Amino acid sequence: MKLHDVTRAPNPRRARIFIAEKGLPMPELVQLDLAAMQHREPAYAGLNPWMGTPALELDDGTVIAESVAICRYFEEMQPAPALFGTGARERALVEMWNRRLEMGLYTNIAQTFRHTSPHMAQREVPQVPAWGEANRARALEQMVLIDRHLADGRPFICGDSFSIADITGGVSLDFARVPRIAIPPELVHLARWHAALAARPAWAA
Amino acid sequence: MKLHDVTRAPNPRRARIFIAEKGLPMPELVQLDLAAMQHREPAYAGLNPWMGTPALELDDGTVIAESVAICRYFEEMQPAPALFGTGARERALVEMWNRRLEMGLYTNIAQTFRHTSPHMAQREVPQVPAWGEANRARALEQMVLIDRHLADGRPFICGDSFSIADITGGVSLDFARVPRIAIPPELVHLARWHAALAARPAWAA
Repeated sequence: MKLHDVTRAPNPRRARIFIAEKGLPMPELVQLDLAAMQHREPAYAGLNPWMGTPALELDDGTVIAESVAICRYFEEMQPAPALFGTGARERALVEMWNRRLEMGLYTNIAQTFRHTSPHMAQREVPQVPAWGEANRARALEQMVLIDRHLADGRPFICGDSFSIADITGGVSLDFARVPRIAIPPELVHLARWHAALAARPAWAA
Repeated sequence: MKLHDVTRAPNPRRARIFIAEKGLPMPELVQLDLAAMQHREPAYAGLNPWMGTPALELDDGTVIAESVAICRYFEEMQPAPALFGTGARERALVEMWNRRLEMGLYTNIAQTFRHTSPHMAQREVPQVPAWGEANRARALEQMVLIDRHLADGRPFICGDSFSIADITGGVSLDFARVPRIAIPPELVHLARWHAALAARPAWAA
């Protein structure tokens, strides 16, 4: 089993942290150099025509692309600890929160980076700086909503347990440093949650 | 149980089609008028602070927002027919395909609509027309990738069975008519798949 990986990119990090939180051995990591556009070369595009990272290559040749799909594979192979929730209601709520954090916070941060960074000019064509700046404002709106949800002191974003939604949120906040979107100082609940996540041993994965 | 619904919007349609494909009774539908901004009024924003639609309100007061989370709830409550796949490998692959179709095709179509339609000027602030047009081109790129995947004549996007990924793809292609993104005539496999999906009885839900 091989994990096609990009050490510093947020989506591969989500998969690696998930695997570490499950207590599973890390698959063999195969590094891709995005700056050199290796993910668009035939060797990788043949495995994953959508050319996103990471991708998990099973020993039978099956390729599972998309970080959350990779996490789902490991969840099904080893259910404990449950990181997608337990029971219908909780599984649905974890999915809801993971999507809120991914399609809200994460996407806003990533779009800010992709559309405002000179480093992305070659990979994001066309760059639309006005769209990048619109997303910077939206990322801050998302931070306010999440802070409000965490204001009762809850340790995790969904229910009583750590879940994939926490991974998505924490990795997103780590990544926010790249396009310089800081957590506003008044969002103390968000900052507390982020600090607790970053202190987890799996965060080093 | 109530489903907060918008008859013509694509994400509520995904949930309704999923419920119909499961053969489950439709929950009581509560219509929201997006043009009148009802989804941003306190009555709804109190239930779902992210203000997206649809949202499922359970009898115990739990609110499950996000179409895919609602589908997940019904899948867990009634596993057959399995629309999220069976077994670790297949469940991961359904998740992968659903994400490719949602975060690629669907998002590209939706962003084209949101950033180019005068009807969205009040809800999408700021509208960034250059971003809308960039997405129109990307939607066509996604159509080419999906057509290539379907070129072997397979009836469904993932494996041998109909799944939530087909719902996401079919609803996206229906929605593409709104921003006038037509399937190019040479993409015969994509058109064949779309026509077969639109002919399913559940599609009327």
